[in-house]
Parts: sequence; C-alpha cells; structure tokens
Amino acid sequence: MTFNEKLNQVCSKKNSLVCVGLDVDLNKIPRFILDEDEPQVFFSKAIIDATIEYAAAYKINTAFFEAYGANGWEAMAKIVNYLPEDVIKIADAKRGDIGNTSKLYARAFFEEMNFDAITINPYLGGDAVAPFLEDEEKGVFILCHTTNKGAEDFQKFNDGKNAMYERVAEKVQQWNQKNNCGLVVGATYPEEMKHVRSLVPELPFLVPGLGAQGGDFELAIQYATDENGLGAIFNFSRGIIYRSDGEDFAEAAGKKSNQVKEDIIRINEQRINNFKN
Amino acid sequence: MTFNEKLNQVCSKKNSLVCVGLDVDLNKIPRFILDEDEPQVFFSKAIIDATIEYAAAYKINTAFFEAYGANGWEAMAKIVNYLPEDVIKIADAKRGDIGNTSKLYARAFFEEMNFDAITINPYLGGDAVAPFLEDEEKGVFILCHTTNKGAEDFQKFNDGKNAMYERVAEKVQQWNQKNNCGLVVGATYPEEMKHVRSLVPELPFLVPGLGAQGGDFELAIQYATDENGLGAIFNFSRGIIYRSDGEDFAEAAGKKSNQVKEDIIRINEQRINNFKN
Repeated sequence: MTFNEKLNQVCSKKNSLVCVGLDVDLNKIPRFILDEDEPQVFFSKAIIDATIEYAAAYKINTAFFEAYGANGWEAMAKIVNYLPEDVIKIADAKRGDIGNTSKLYARAFFEEMNFDAITINPYLGGDAVAPFLEDEEKGVFILCHTTNKGAEDFQKFNDGKNAMYERVAEKVQQWNQKNNCGLVVGATYPEEMKHVRSLVPELPFLVPGLGAQGGDFELAIQYATDENGLGAIFNFSRGIIYRSDGEDFAEAAGKKSNQVKEDIIRINEQRINNFKN
Repeated sequence: MTFNEKLNQVCSKKNSLVCVGLDVDLNKIPRFILDEDEPQVFFSKAIIDATIEYAAAYKINTAFFEAYGANGWEAMAKIVNYLPEDVIKIADAKRGDIGNTSKLYARAFFEEMNFDAITINPYLGGDAVAPFLEDEEKGVFILCHTTNKGAEDFQKFNDGKNAMYERVAEKVQQWNQKNNCGLVVGATYPEEMKHVRSLVPELPFLVPGLGAQGGDFELAIQYATDENGLGAIFNFSRGIIYRSDGEDFAEAAGKKSNQVKEDIIRINEQRINNFKN
C-alpha cells in the first residue's frame, strides 16, 4: 500500500483528520514531570494515551529533541516506538540536502527510527528529494507555503505567472510517481491554500497553523480537504498538548483533541452536503 | 569579535582557506577502524590530527551522524569538542524552521554543542533565520546556490530580473547586521558564483563541490575570494578524508589537505598579482 493510500485509510477508519504535534518543550510541560527520569518520554506517552482515540497522525518536531543532544534522540526514538501501527508517524524534520546526504537522512528517519513520513524543504530540488521517495510506503510532505510571516520572503517570489510556492506544488505533483508525496500548506494563508488545492487536487496536505498560530479553522478545512472530506490532516501542537499545567494535563489534551476532531467532522459534513446540493 | 571577523582572522593566521568536511560514512572508512568502539570518533580524531596544520575550518555533515541515531549524536558532540579553539567549527545541518523551532535548533548547535556556525536553508524566510543570528560570535551560512543538478528546479526560478538564488543573496546581505552571515555557493556553477560575488562583495562564501563533485578549482577560487584573497573557505570532504583505505589513511588526508591548501594559495597569489598589475 502506498503512503497516501495508508494516510486516507487511517483517516477514514479513525474518522479523524487530526494530527497531534509533539513539540515537547521542557519549559512548557507541567513542572512535576521534570522529576521523571525521561520527562519528554513520560509526557509524550501520557499525551498519546489520552489522544490516540481521536488522532489519525502524530508529528514529532525533531528540533525539540535535538535541543537535548543524544538524550533527546533517544527520547524521540522511544516515543516513535510507543506509537501504535495504525497511526501515521511524521518526523517534522524539514531536511533537504544533496543526494548522498539525503539517503542518510532517509535511513535515519525511515530505518533507524520507524517514521512513516518526513517533512522536506524543497530548496535543493528534485534530486535532493528523490532518496526519500524510493519506498512507496514511506511518505514525504514537502514545504510549499509555510505559516510564518517570512514565508513572503521567498515563497511568494513570482515569475509573473507563478509564485515559488506554486512552482513547488507543481513539481511535487510530478515527483508523485509512487503516490507518496504531499505538501505542507499553512492555515495562516487561506487564499494561497485554496490556490494550491486547485493546482494539485490529489496531493495530501499537512496543515499547520491552526490553534496557537491563529489560522482560520473553517476556511482551512474547506480549502484543504477533497470532495470526500479527506486529503488533508490538520496539526495541533501547543493548542492540544499544553491545555493544563496540572495533573490533568493529559486528560485536557484528550478532551481538546476530541473537540477539534468533532469540529472538523462537522465543518466537513456541512461542506460535503453543500457539494451535493 | 563577530563571526565573520573571526573567520577572516583564522584564515589569515593559518594562511589557509581549506575546510575539511567530516562526512564520516562507516561504509567508506578503512575496514579495520570498524573494530574500534566508536569508529566515527576514532576516524575523525585521526583525520583532525593529520589535517589541523592545514585547515582553517571543519564542517561536520550532521546527516552522517544522525543516520546512527543517539549514538551518532554522541559521536558528533565528541568530535566537535576535540577540535581546538582556533579553527572554525561548522555544523552542516541545513536546518530551517519557524521562529520558535529555529530557536531550539540554535540552542542544539550553538549551546548543546559547541559549533561556531551552521548552514541554513532559506526557504522559510527571514524570521526563520533570525534566531541563529542573535549572537554575533555565531555564524550562519545560508544556502544560496547548491552544487547539485536539482539546484536548477527552484534556485534558478526567475522573476525576469533576478533568479531565486540572487534574491537570497540580497536578502542575506540585509540580514547581515551583526556581520555573522555568509552564503553557501557551490563550485559546480562558476558563472552563478561570479554573479553572486558581484552582488554581495562582503559576505563570506562556504564553497562545496570542489574535489569529488568536480567543480573547477581555478574558477572557484578566482570568483569566490575577495581582493585580499580572503572571504571564502573551500570545503573538501571525500576528496580529503578517503584518500587511502590502509593504515596510512590519516597521513594521506594530511598530505592532500596540505596540497589543496598550497594550490589555493598559489592560485590566489597569481590572482592578487593580476589585480595589482
């Protein structure tokens, strides 16, 4: 089964488009967890237990673990291994390097660790992405339009017909020979998202920027998903995992992930009904 | 002292523009080293000992260590710590993420590990680079034009006046408020390098692509360096560190690094004399 097929299957089966972002910052988790031997692992396992019913995917931001060196990498590996088989495991690593180096990153994330997908920066071009695409079961989400203000510096650079982010979308469509490519398209630029969706109707989107970064919920769901209400997953990091500083931190995360899951379903159903009418 | 001042000072003092790239691949190092407890560390220390007289900088490609998970990170930290104070230590990490994540990467490479500089991918724009620029003593080399064929996919994307890589060069010039920004400009595209140099006369270049990737030696030195014969360092990875499979691997690396150091000096002197005449 190709990665994109698996992504759709998991989202359908769990009836969820929610991705929980494990941006585990030791300065933000409840204080009492710092007494644990491996606070990042302890916190993540509790969050996973509380949210697994509602989440289709988990995205681990590698920076939050690299910041703690070798110990951080060990923690990351333990967390990936803790995740069950029937959710999508994404390394938010934003890597990108020339071919022989990309091969090593692919090995690091797909073999050394058991991730299903990775985020990749497109700047180095097709031969830098190719090593990540060899195994159809492993997926790649390529940065197309990011959530931040700096996205305008280069992603909006325009040749008179197309902006860079549009060119990226079209190139990734060409690279999608094994049905294992997707795009990262931020919710904070809904018009650009709408436009990307029209350019590449079949590529799945990984959508950051809802929640803490303030992207518009209804527009993002309307523009990112396909006519079957699939084709996109919506990431929530700070907005889910830091709901409470107390003993109920995991419970609070579970409750919030259930709420966003239901909100997305509701908006999606309205939209699909509008399609049909 | 700012990073760019330190870079020039080290290059002047050591009379060298050579950067040794520690792309330590366990499939390429001499077989007998695999019997050591920490083969990447053992190999790197021997290479460093043999080349330190001739090198101004060392560039550690993080992928080659990440490929071995937490153990790889530990090895990388040991190697950085082994390098003396008076050489430039570059993490070739090609990171790039939104602000709060970039902060963590800056912490990982500049505080958790003792690197002087890091390579950064520009695609996310200025606010993603800013956290790496806060400390004037720490430097950033931003990918401008890379060595690979895929560089043409997006870096050559053109608005009719400028290509993306030129826009990157001009933006980085603006970001260089603390004199700690440089550019990665590959030797395999000499005309583009010449053009970037004319756009940003003051930014130092980190130049990959000589040696194994086949960039033109004389053109690269001619186009990358400034009128004082400084302003650029030239990276050699495979071309230096894998000269021999035998017990003399380190000696062979030392010999080769001395040779490229002298070649660069010779070409540079000819060029500077031409300037004067």
